[in-house]
Amino acid sequence: MDQKRYRIRELGTAPGHFEPGPLNAITDVAGVRVGHVTCREGERTRTGATAILPHGGNLFQDKVPAGFAVLNGFGKFAGSTQVVELGEIETPVVLTNTLAVGRGIEAIIRHTLAQPGNDKVVSINAVVGETNDSRLNDIRAARPSVDEISLAIDSAASGPVEEGAAGAGTGTVAFGLKGGIGTSSRLVPVGEETYRLGVLVQSNYGGHLIVAGRDYATSAEHDKDGSIVIVLATDAPLCSRNLERLAQRCFGGLARTGAALSNGSGDYALAFSTAEAVRRTPERRKGVSAVPSLNNDAVSPLFEAAIEATEEAILNSLAMAIETTGFNAATGKASTVKAISLPHPGRR
Amino acid sequence: MDQKRYRIRELGTAPGHFEPGPLNAITDVAGVRVGHVTCREGERTRTGATAILPHGGNLFQDKVPAGFAVLNGFGKFAGSTQVVELGEIETPVVLTNTLAVGRGIEAIIRHTLAQPGNDKVVSINAVVGETNDSRLNDIRAARPSVDEISLAIDSAASGPVEEGAAGAGTGTVAFGLKGGIGTSSRLVPVGEETYRLGVLVQSNYGGHLIVAGRDYATSAEHDKDGSIVIVLATDAPLCSRNLERLAQRCFGGLARTGAALSNGSGDYALAFSTAEAVRRTPERRKGVSAVPSLNNDAVSPLFEAAIEATEEAILNSLAMAIETTGFNAATGKASTVKAISLPHPGRR
Amino acid sequence: MDQKRYRIRELGTAPGHFEPGPLNAITDVAGVRVGHVTCREGERTRTGATAILPHGGNLFQDKVPAGFAVLNGFGKFAGSTQVVELGEIETPVVLTNTLAVGRGIEAIIRHTLAQPGNDKVVSINAVVGETNDSRLNDIRAARPSVDEISLAIDSAASGPVEEGAAGAGTGTVAFGLKGGIGTSSRLVPVGEETYRLGVLVQSNYGGHLIVAGRDYATSAEHDKDGSIVIVLATDAPLCSRNLERLAQRCFGGLARTGAALSNGSGDYALAFSTAEAVRRTPERRKGVSAVPSLNNDAVSPLFEAAIEATEEAILNSLAMAIETTGFNAATGKASTVKAISLPHPGRR
Amino acid sequence: MDQKRYRIRELGTAPGHFEPGPLNAITDVAGVRVGHVTCREGERTRTGATAILPHGGNLFQDKVPAGFAVLNGFGKFAGSTQVVELGEIETPVVLTNTLAVGRGIEAIIRHTLAQPGNDKVVSINAVVGETNDSRLNDIRAARPSVDEISLAIDSAASGPVEEGAAGAGTGTVAFGLKGGIGTSSRLVPVGEETYRLGVLVQSNYGGHLIVAGRDYATSAEHDKDGSIVIVLATDAPLCSRNLERLAQRCFGGLARTGAALSNGSGDYALAFSTAEAVRRTPERRKGVSAVPSLNNDAVSPLFEAAIEATEEAILNSLAMAIETTGFNAATGKASTVKAISLPHPGRR
Repeated sequence: MDQKRYRIRELGTAPGHFEPGPLNAITDVAGVRVGHVTCREGERTRTGATAILPHGGNLFQDKVPAGFAVLNGFGKFAGSTQVVELGEIETPVVLTNTLAVGRGIEAIIRHTLAQPGNDKVVSINAVVGETNDSRLNDIRAARPSVDEISLAIDSAASGPVEEGAAGAGTGTVAFGLKGGIGTSSRLVPVGEETYRLGVLVQSNYGGHLIVAGRDYATSAEHDKDGSIVIVLATDAPLCSRNLERLAQRCFGGLARTGAALSNGSGDYALAFSTAEAVRRTPERRKGVSAVPSLNNDAVSPLFEAAIEATEEAILNSLAMAIETTGFNAATGKASTVKAISLPHPGRR
Repeated sequence: MDQKRYRIRELGTAPGHFEPGPLNAITDVAGVRVGHVTCREGERTRTGATAILPHGGNLFQDKVPAGFAVLNGFGKFAGSTQVVELGEIETPVVLTNTLAVGRGIEAIIRHTLAQPGNDKVVSINAVVGETNDSRLNDIRAARPSVDEISLAIDSAASGPVEEGAAGAGTGTVAFGLKGGIGTSSRLVPVGEETYRLGVLVQSNYGGHLIVAGRDYATSAEHDKDGSIVIVLATDAPLCSRNLERLAQRCFGGLARTGAALSNGSGDYALAFSTAEAVRRTPERRKGVSAVPSLNNDAVSPLFEAAIEATEEAILNSLAMAIETTGFNAATGKASTVKAISLPHPGRR
Repeated sequence: MDQKRYRIRELGTAPGHFEPGPLNAITDVAGVRVGHVTCREGERTRTGATAILPHGGNLFQDKVPAGFAVLNGFGKFAGSTQVVELGEIETPVVLTNTLAVGRGIEAIIRHTLAQPGNDKVVSINAVVGETNDSRLNDIRAARPSVDEISLAIDSAASGPVEEGAAGAGTGTVAFGLKGGIGTSSRLVPVGEETYRLGVLVQSNYGGHLIVAGRDYATSAEHDKDGSIVIVLATDAPLCSRNLERLAQRCFGGLARTGAALSNGSGDYALAFSTAEAVRRTPERRKGVSAVPSLNNDAVSPLFEAAIEATEEAILNSLAMAIETTGFNAATGKASTVKAISLPHPGRR
Repeated sequence: MDQKRYRIRELGTAPGHFEPGPLNAITDVAGVRVGHVTCREGERTRTGATAILPHGGNLFQDKVPAGFAVLNGFGKFAGSTQVVELGEIETPVVLTNTLAVGRGIEAIIRHTLAQPGNDKVVSINAVVGETNDSRLNDIRAARPSVDEISLAIDSAASGPVEEGAAGAGTGTVAFGLKGGIGTSSRLVPVGEETYRLGVLVQSNYGGHLIVAGRDYATSAEHDKDGSIVIVLATDAPLCSRNLERLAQRCFGGLARTGAALSNGSGDYALAFSTAEAVRRTPERRKGVSAVPSLNNDAVSPLFEAAIEATEEAILNSLAMAIETTGFNAATGKASTVKAISLPHPGRR
């Protein structure tokens, strides 16, 4: 079987109107790091974790402003109330499977406690998203472990991001096809500045797939349940309120792919700003500080870019995924999920 | 100029997978009534109001369960906090222009105070949505009046609904083209039942229009701001929590049309159930009552239908609208907004 | 009957630990203006309106950051979704009775359209709160009128604020006793600065009254329903997120008075900052601006002050109210509501 | 030192007006079980966990309707978005310390996966609340362990509840005094029924303590930060929307104790109904079911009872706590926190 895969843009589909960044990945936003741990063992283990770090420094000391949005809350996203209340993230963001959220928290806490300068830290808001990979993974078997998730955090790096059946996307399924990790980015002119915005998704949801505006014919039955976690980074200086609004827009891209937005879906989006000027350093957290912020009237181009980049990241997660055979934990049987079949570049 | 207009389904575009109801209108849901008042006078007045009545009885006495959702809250929607808190609507729903919300409330209160059986009523939660028709209407001139809005309420009827540049859609603009009122419905099998679900929209927003999955080439400049109010009715027996979730899904249909979801948009959705068994009558409002409810696990087909019906209602609002010349209140000059040009049925 | 009334602090009760400002009123926050219109006519009209202006300039052009909170949403508060979305207020805030909200919106729109510099304005988010004065007022009779509410806006002034049965408090009832308008303020040291924070309430709710921590014996039956609107001003430079949190704290003061927080209560709080540096002027609304903000770690003293000032403002609304005879609109009969009887200063 | 402790009602203080149940504890609500694990070892470990089980059956199969409320979200409460979305709880509720939330989730998942009938379960929404006991506990040392938390779940029983420095309250501090676990209940007449409502708190917050309406003089410095988690059970048949409103009322009781509601506080409330008729069994989760529900107009007595019971539960947590010496993890030094000193019964 030909498992050579192409990103959706290579296949001729380019959602939206803004230009992508050089890698067309969340790592186009300077400082952002991504790490995967992929657990693919025997016939039953098809899972993993993906860590996204807003910057390469001490995140607990130099927090980043953030916003959070829920479309459908059938999910176990950890850390949301503090992100909303304080408008910030203070740890790596970890994506993993539904029953590994507790271990994801443990891994983040260990990481944070161990960092130099954090020896007096006694409160840590770990941010962990998940989707359910039980159609291909023996999710009841407690993998990835805390140590494995720590590997994802420790290996996070800038540069290209592995997509498809990798990290937290190893065992996920979207539209009855193999989903997984996908990413995309946009260059967004606002006034005289050009900001960067990048999105990374863990796709595991259903609906009637639309690719580039066309119903995608598939033999897969209508598979509507599942979830998606969307992480957005931008270097635009935004306050937490506008980051929350930006996170909300990611669901526009989700809808454009034909998502069913069903009862059983956990649809979450998290957006943060990497701009150095808005970073919440110990000095700035004291008393009054003047922080630059892109105002309400100027944010709309970023909103549209969030929609586009999310759509493309999702399509990349499908396009780059490979057919996977694993174990269906709800039925206790082996299962195979096909990859999407799209015309290859030379054959268009 | 040929102003004969066709609905989007007549033009060969049928969003989604569920069948529409007989009228393909919100009034396919039994009991729902719609009334318009259209104010089109001289060179400056292009506005109006549209009233939606969940049933033909005394709404204050026999309230209906309802849910409310906001995608972007740049709008003046009245009555939202009580709908959310109590999970119900007790008046007609009025749509009108941005500066007429106060008059819409007045009209609803007059209507409610005057109904037989309401002579001791001292608290009324008027529900009024709006979008801004100032690109074609002298919005500062205080039209429609309270009396005019009352006409919309009083004239509400079942049967076909006038679409396009009518009622609250008389002066609205979407994607730089003439928008207005649109409606659509779906027949939704859930288990052994088939429920009906209908949507009515007042379209006035922007983005890059997608019709049936294809970018719609237009000479109109990218016009991203504006708003939309979406009203959804269903005869499925739903609790207020699941109606709120259903309202939230309408934004999926909005996104599929290419909405920019910009800062300046007021995007609201309101959903209610007309099922007699869930109606909150005076008897049922006392103490404990057992009310049937479609459970979480069964609501997903309605969620998908809400997405589809919203998309089609929006496309109908464009397809049925006619080129309109009026007055731009922000510039103080005459303005003309074209209707969308789509291949006519015979020419497909 | 001796109707000479004293504020609660004159009567020996001083809730909390921070010092009040010179007037112990919301107008201690520089720039804030308050205006009343009191409609007390014949045997049936006991109502009015109260306007609070965050500053004396053009509020639409120079908006103020704001936050909004709901404890129980059984109320008709207008303008909330836009305050939440954009984090700002652009008009006077009007308090009035439940069925006058539409007229309050009209009055605010007329005021805003007429101001110099606003001749191109086509969208206005009017903010109107209400409580239900129908136990003393013929609320069905459409008073105050739009013109009367305009008088409240036009007469708004700095300086002492009339409390008790005045303005929007003319006909309100709290704990089965005459309630109304009350105000209080605090001087709040934060680091090396001392900020001012003021609260104004329209009290109309119930419960078991606690004055200065003691159950207040009353012959009034347990009267639990009703509502309260709380408006908070501060000169501390706060972002909208922290203003929302500050608004939320007002409910702490409400609870300390023995509020029942019942189903029928509409409990709303609105907080804004008058600091010149955070004002959203036309210049600052373009692109990026650096605005000073008191950070999360420094806001707690203001939070406690909000609790204290709200408690005292409520007690002032009771202490300063006078026995009132009017018309109960739900029963159609005359009604009398007593003022609270507290030991007079000389008699303590 | 006399460490004999008395509940607040034994000391002559009885907040509110409703009668308590026979145990004056959350376990007065039939079926509710509470279990503690107390980790008190050497000089550094002063922590633990407390599990609350809504009923004694299989919670995952027979879910209970639930509502959730946040006053200040500086906390790590797990499971909140799914509780809000679906309006239900499907696991034990675990309270523990801030850095043990991940282990709490693990313990709940292990418990749920292992129960008979759950062998195909692949998605579990673990609900874990926490406060920060680092002023007396070496919170960085990863206690309680998963196995220890499992002991709390496994030992949960009906009957009297150990209060004060036990379970998740072993190391918590409130108002600069030793806090911990407290509980209380109320018998609430509604129409012809008398419902039971019980509250359990983990107190760890600050402010200026008010006991029975009187400022409580203490040598403790003003200690404002910290958190509280409040769990409420009732046998009244309530829908999730009204349970959310009920949860919200718990903060009224919190405010009455003098809580500062500071930036650093994580204040959460969770309410569930144990009524058999509203339990979400597999049968009822299919399609349409008619479930009895106490309506909006009838819930207010429960709302007041929630305020009262929360106030008393908090005062019990203080009254029953004992002076504790431990380890301050932020300073790295030994620390002692005194118990509240209240007049003993014989000496009143």
